[in-house]
Amino acid sequence: MLAEIITIGDEILIGQIVDTNSAWMAQQLNNAGIRVKQISSVSDDRQHILTALAEAAERAGIIFITGGLGPTKDDITKKTLAEYFGVGMVESKAALNNVLRIFEKYKRPLLEVNRLQAEVPENCEVIVNKNGTAPGMWFNHNGKIYVSMPGVPFEMMYMMEEQVIPKIKTLFKLPVIIHKTILTVGEGESFLAERIADIEDSLPTHIKLAYLPKLGQVRLRLSGYGENESLLRKEVNDYLSKLVERVSDFVIAEEDIPLEKAILNYMTEKGLTLSVAESCTGGYISHLLTQHAGSSKVFFGGAISYSYELKESMLGVKNETLWQYGAVSEQTVSEMVEGALLNFKSDYAIAVTGIAGPDGGLPDKPVGTVWIAVASAKKMVAKKFTFGTKRQQNIERSATMAFFMLNNLLKDDEK
Amino acid sequence: MLAEIITIGDEILIGQIVDTNSAWMAQQLNNAGIRVKQISSVSDDRQHILTALAEAAERAGIIFITGGLGPTKDDITKKTLAEYFGVGMVESKAALNNVLRIFEKYKRPLLEVNRLQAEVPENCEVIVNKNGTAPGMWFNHNGKIYVSMPGVPFEMMYMMEEQVIPKIKTLFKLPVIIHKTILTVGEGESFLAERIADIEDSLPTHIKLAYLPKLGQVRLRLSGYGENESLLRKEVNDYLSKLVERVSDFVIAEEDIPLEKAILNYMTEKGLTLSVAESCTGGYISHLLTQHAGSSKVFFGGAISYSYELKESMLGVKNETLWQYGAVSEQTVSEMVEGALLNFKSDYAIAVTGIAGPDGGLPDKPVGTVWIAVASAKKMVAKKFTFGTKRQQNIERSATMAFFMLNNLLKDDEK
Repeated sequence: MLAEIITIGDEILIGQIVDTNSAWMAQQLNNAGIRVKQISSVSDDRQHILTALAEAAERAGIIFITGGLGPTKDDITKKTLAEYFGVGMVESKAALNNVLRIFEKYKRPLLEVNRLQAEVPENCEVIVNKNGTAPGMWFNHNGKIYVSMPGVPFEMMYMMEEQVIPKIKTLFKLPVIIHKTILTVGEGESFLAERIADIEDSLPTHIKLAYLPKLGQVRLRLSGYGENESLLRKEVNDYLSKLVERVSDFVIAEEDIPLEKAILNYMTEKGLTLSVAESCTGGYISHLLTQHAGSSKVFFGGAISYSYELKESMLGVKNETLWQYGAVSEQTVSEMVEGALLNFKSDYAIAVTGIAGPDGGLPDKPVGTVWIAVASAKKMVAKKFTFGTKRQQNIERSATMAFFMLNNLLKDDEK
Repeated sequence: MLAEIITIGDEILIGQIVDTNSAWMAQQLNNAGIRVKQISSVSDDRQHILTALAEAAERAGIIFITGGLGPTKDDITKKTLAEYFGVGMVESKAALNNVLRIFEKYKRPLLEVNRLQAEVPENCEVIVNKNGTAPGMWFNHNGKIYVSMPGVPFEMMYMMEEQVIPKIKTLFKLPVIIHKTILTVGEGESFLAERIADIEDSLPTHIKLAYLPKLGQVRLRLSGYGENESLLRKEVNDYLSKLVERVSDFVIAEEDIPLEKAILNYMTEKGLTLSVAESCTGGYISHLLTQHAGSSKVFFGGAISYSYELKESMLGVKNETLWQYGAVSEQTVSEMVEGALLNFKSDYAIAVTGIAGPDGGLPDKPVGTVWIAVASAKKMVAKKFTFGTKRQQNIERSATMAFFMLNNLLKDDEK
């Protein structure tokens, strides 16, 4: 079954808000076995909405519409839908009761404009909005289904989860869609593609492989489409195992999670602890770790040693090391990581020092030169990288490679 | 002039990624005086892409296409564009040189699949991709312009800013649009609206005011539309001054820059230095500061003291303070901020300790309880906040309020 999503409103078209609703809806629909064919954002313009509806109905069996249901004059979704279906408007008792309930709850006087929220196209089946006054609407028209919902995320989400998706499931026998993702780090998209070319070529037409690259990381995603869930799951898993085996040196996780979360999961399971000594990444590695709930089980914290002085006082880097070899050197990063282990008393430590740019480059150390070290009680590894000239990217790449090196050290220590 | 944006790729349609590219592009285009009529996300499907291109060309004069330009088999944008224009493919010398340059730089062998990245439809004008191997492409066809760019955000952004928008500006006389933004912190949207209601009501129809709220911050943006740039600029600036005067207590910057950048600018100018002691923000404050080039002039670094032990060893928080009052308390945050000033020898310090959640709440300290302190040699201020239950939001709000408190302390100390 194919679906389309149409979002109505100017906020998205002027770039004032990012359309997160559609991604969320697409995820829910895919999980339910409904493929989204197209997502369109259109303006609060009658003719434009009419055209978008007609175009979507040519491609898909079910059309989801969000936005444009507010009480103000610029919201024209309802009357445009009535025009599209060629029907008039009626007051819905269910929608009116819901409006009255909400105004009573907040003890606010009901204005005429609020009462108008209960008016709906006469061919619609009202979806009661538990979290707001604008009703959701379900239409059957010429063999297609149209579902109109408010653009306010939590109102829409509740309707989708509690009412719309369950209703679709009772009406249609949906195909099974299974997505499986591997997270790889340390090898480029085209090199991975070459390594797995024969596996990719051998995929049946109902299983697709996608490459999702992101600064130093590539996700490989298999998507299987079928009827029999257990059969399909086995088939997708078999191909997944082949992929994992082929590129095992670069696989960090066999699920769709962020890199640092994969490391936190592993270290939590093993009862291991981590601290950091961050110079050019300036807190970014710590931030990535601590954005995840439960990170405190693994992560003790560490030093943001941006200045020479703090490298000495917080990490015990020797003054002569800094002056002889410079802050961006194997010697300094080694003393930083050893200092973190010693001072912060964790099982593992990460240290990063580099020139993030755009200024501060030297003839022998251009912008983008970064030294990264990881260490445990058993072993220390330090490596030099030469990234590019963009500060933000150098910071992100440094964090990715630091986690990759830590992952490899964890694997080594396990042997 | 009307534009449309088409994003190609299944990632958005299955909800794996949120389409942030389109919002960014829409913003840039609006700033340049180009209105976006529709944004569409379509699948990596030949027929679907062809239809989307034709539909967009009926509505708009310029069509931006992102995604589907990778070296792998699932990326079909280039050959589908060639089919749409009814032309063959040729190897572009400029694109090939760019691919060679990048492979040389990273000292990687060139694969056949990489060389294919230099092939483009023969009617295209190549836009060289400084940050990647996939070329951007500019087409003129039946009086419409088509611009195809990679979906990797920083590759696309660089092309848009440096090449595409400047080129459009040389080809078309665009209307003058002037945006002016004030950054406010510490007061809600509706309260600000009430304070400036009379100024808002007095705006002429060609100047619009928008409220752009974001966790604890509200940007007020004036957008003026006209023909005469200098006249319009004066008019917008006059209204801006009125707004600034009215809500001056909350204005951090009279330009559209991030909060922490406004603080860095001020401290750089005054020659002041800063260090941090971060617990629940876990490096986020440091990361916000250090993502800006030149931050090392102001920012020394500091402690990510996630554990009790590191609060003691790095910041000198007393063991009895932690046990008597807890890690989330006025006493602890005060000792943290004083410890940062003392140990890291900066003019100013920020300390944050709190319960980011979703777990770890206590009866008297629910999730979202955060203590923030800022200090200079002259003065220390500590304040308690009660945010919500969402971890990421609590971290962001804590950082925003920490910067707001530091801003107020800087202003106070100046008096």
